Amino acid sequence: MIAKDEISAEYQIIQEEICRGLEDLDGAAKFEEEIWERDGGGGRTRVIQNGQIFEKGGVNFSAVYGKLPGAVKKAFKVDTDEFFATGVSIVIHPNHPFVPIIHMNIRYFEMNEEIKWFGGGIDVTPHYIFEEDARFFHSRIKEICNRFSPSFYPEFKTWADNYFFIRHRNETRGIGGIFYDRLTPPKAGISWNEIFEFSKAVGRSFIPVYSELVNRNRNKEFTENEKQWQYQRRSRYAEFNLVYDAGTKFGLETNGRIESILMSLPPQANWVYNYQPLPDSEEEKTLGLLKKGIDWVE
Amino acid sequence: MIAKDEISAEYQIIQEEICRGLEDLDGAAKFEEEIWERDGGGGRTRVIQNGQIFEKGGVNFSAVYGKLPGAVKKAFKVDTDEFFATGVSIVIHPNHPFVPIIHMNIRYFEMNEEIKWFGGGIDVTPHYIFEEDARFFHSRIKEICNRFSPSFYPEFKTWADNYFFIRHRNETRGIGGIFYDRLTPPKAGISWNEIFEFSKAVGRSFIPVYSELVNRNRNKEFTENEKQWQYQRRSRYAEFNLVYDAGTKFGLETNGRIESILMSLPPQANWVYNYQPLPDSEEEKTLGLLKKGIDWVE
Repeated sequence: MIAKDEISAEYQIIQEEICRGLEDLDGAAKFEEEIWERDGGGGRTRVIQNGQIFEKGGVNFSAVYGKLPGAVKKAFKVDTDEFFATGVSIVIHPNHPFVPIIHMNIRYFEMNEEIKWFGGGIDVTPHYIFEEDARFFHSRIKEICNRFSPSFYPEFKTWADNYFFIRHRNETRGIGGIFYDRLTPPKAGISWNEIFEFSKAVGRSFIPVYSELVNRNRNKEFTENEKQWQYQRRSRYAEFNLVYDAGTKFGLETNGRIESILMSLPPQANWVYNYQPLPDSEEEKTLGLLKKGIDWVE
Repeated sequence: MIAKDEISAEYQIIQEEICRGLEDLDGAAKFEEEIWERDGGGGRTRVIQNGQIFEKGGVNFSAVYGKLPGAVKKAFKVDTDEFFATGVSIVIHPNHPFVPIIHMNIRYFEMNEEIKWFGGGIDVTPHYIFEEDARFFHSRIKEICNRFSPSFYPEFKTWADNYFFIRHRNETRGIGGIFYDRLTPPKAGISWNEIFEFSKAVGRSFIPVYSELVNRNRNKEFTENEKQWQYQRRSRYAEFNLVYDAGTKFGLETNGRIESILMSLPPQANWVYNYQPLPDSEEEKTLGLLKKGIDWVE
């Protein structure tokens, strides 16, 4: 078994590595840090704003404990209501409409010796979907999963398709990636140590994968119309996070720190009434690819 | 008793009056209409965009019927799951940061002879709270309530304070107004006909009240900073509507028409991380007035 403190210590190192990597990538903006405490633990929120590449991004570490609200406790069917949760959570909104939004989360949750698990994932929300980028992203994530179990990628990719789904619009949030929760041994025959290694590998996939997606697209020219489309797509991102996202709900219900929870929301989002993309436009093509079940890797 | 058709016919007339009134007020933009149908009724969505005064506004009429989803039915504890609902719903986002956002809704819901009621309300969300405007608004609404019962204003004002509350930010959405639901005789000794008259009076309060609020503020000068604050406040409006609003939830859960349900969302909203207004600024003063229980009328 792994001590909670070891997990949260490792997550803090990963947060640090990712912030350095993102600052290098941006080349101008620096993260600002806020250390916060609550009645039971606390966290380290790091926010980058108005950079060359990153308009708004947060890399949040937290390790909190306390009592679960009644409704959540009931769902778990346990006697105790004490919980411990630690994780790193990232959302980055780039300036450039051709650079995708990215989200990554690794987390560990524990109530007692029986009830504990890892969760997390990484997924990409392009304003414009470039199929070669989507294939690159999914291939890299699949490789990482395969180092642990061949069952991980297909299972967690489907989970992401189903999770990052904006039901009321019948569209996925983006091109997905992987999502997993309540991961414990003997899942796929692996041990607690291997699951912890998997969690760290997902965390450490972030910088190389996102750097490639940024560098492929950061110098492309774009129009004002494409910028407007970006604002539209961001509003869908806000809808997902406020209506469906379990992490956001958990944060709001457990009296979390609002600005850390809602740092995922876009710096600017536009809701144009009943916007319809032109036939055969890139915007229409993107909408056509916001579907579950697309197999991006052969 | 009043036939459903009579109610929905009257609501359509009110929608028509309000759209004409708003076009007169704007002086430039015209409403665009979309007639939509669903599997059980339909509606008439009218949207005004990019006007002199109104950046985005919707005046939506609908009359729909069908079967309630299981969860909603369960809450009502009835045998039938058939419902009929009709209403007029308005949200207006003005260009000018000193002109408030306004919301009005009148509605009627019926399941059978026993389960039927009126609901609705009108409330104002200023980006900057001007106390004399808040007093004017509440006084006018109180007068209208008092024509039906002296108990209406205090009760429905408190209801609005509690309903239009952004719990995770511990602030009200705006200065409130009135909110009421499940209004049936013999509430305050009044009849179905009087409740219907009250519903119409709320609907017909909209144009005179909002015209006054618009005309008081439309020609004031404002700065770029004030405009940015407006975008910030609009993001709180989006948070309320996506996280808490019962009408939005009902629409999403009953497979309503998405663009009509979400027309309430602002044309542009900004989420700046951890924005703090300057001490003694107008922005700070506004935040200080986003509280429940303020008595705007003596």
